[in-house]
Amino acid sequence: MVAPRPPISIYCEHYQAVIELIGRRWMGAILRVLMSDEPRRFNEVLAAIPGLSDRLLTERLRELTEHEIVERVPAPDISPIAIQYRLTNSGRDLEVVVRAISAWARRWRGGP
Amino acid sequence: MVAPRPPISIYCEHYQAVIELIGRRWMGAILRVLMSDEPRRFNEVLAAIPGLSDRLLTERLRELTEHEIVERVPAPDISPIAIQYRLTNSGRDLEVVVRAISAWARRWRGGP
Repeated sequence: MVAPRPPISIYCEHYQAVIELIGRRWMGAILRVLMSDEPRRFNEVLAAIPGLSDRLLTERLRELTEHEIVERVPAPDISPIAIQYRLTNSGRDLEVVVRAISAWARRWRGGP
Repeated sequence: MVAPRPPISIYCEHYQAVIELIGRRWMGAILRVLMSDEPRRFNEVLAAIPGLSDRLLTERLRELTEHEIVERVPAPDISPIAIQYRLTNSGRDLEVVVRAISAWARRWRGGP
């Protein structure tokens, strides 16, 4: 006879939304670039990630901005249209998640 | 004049593969169910996650097994075909990642 099991009731929509957001194609790489100290220009982020297209970076930055993980700030330029992207406070707080995933990759997949 | 910036060279394919794997639709929820102590049957995992289809659970478990994050073990049944799913050592080591994302969701999205 099989013993009764405790019910599983650990579903959490907030957790699921976050893991699926940061797991979208290129999102993890974009977050990692923005973890650097300074705000970054669009073209800097693009140049840092091999294979990422202009179109997808635009879409991902839009999603991150909508979720208040990234914000747009004026670039220190003469041009009035120059902007940069930087993490918000909640975005910066994702650093522990990025570090945990990086550490796992190092341990089990041989990452740097 | 804009000061020169340090080059960004923090791209890591292993990290990116992991974050995109665990961020696939329903994957985070499935991992969370399997973080429970005992191995789980297919139908238990299915029942624990509202909205998850039979077909997608099959696909996700196949992917997790291929990546050696989940393994199939015999169920303690009379039936010789009954199997269960449990995390491997590397899968269990993802717990710190799952906990970090859950904690972030709690802080910034009001999760439980």
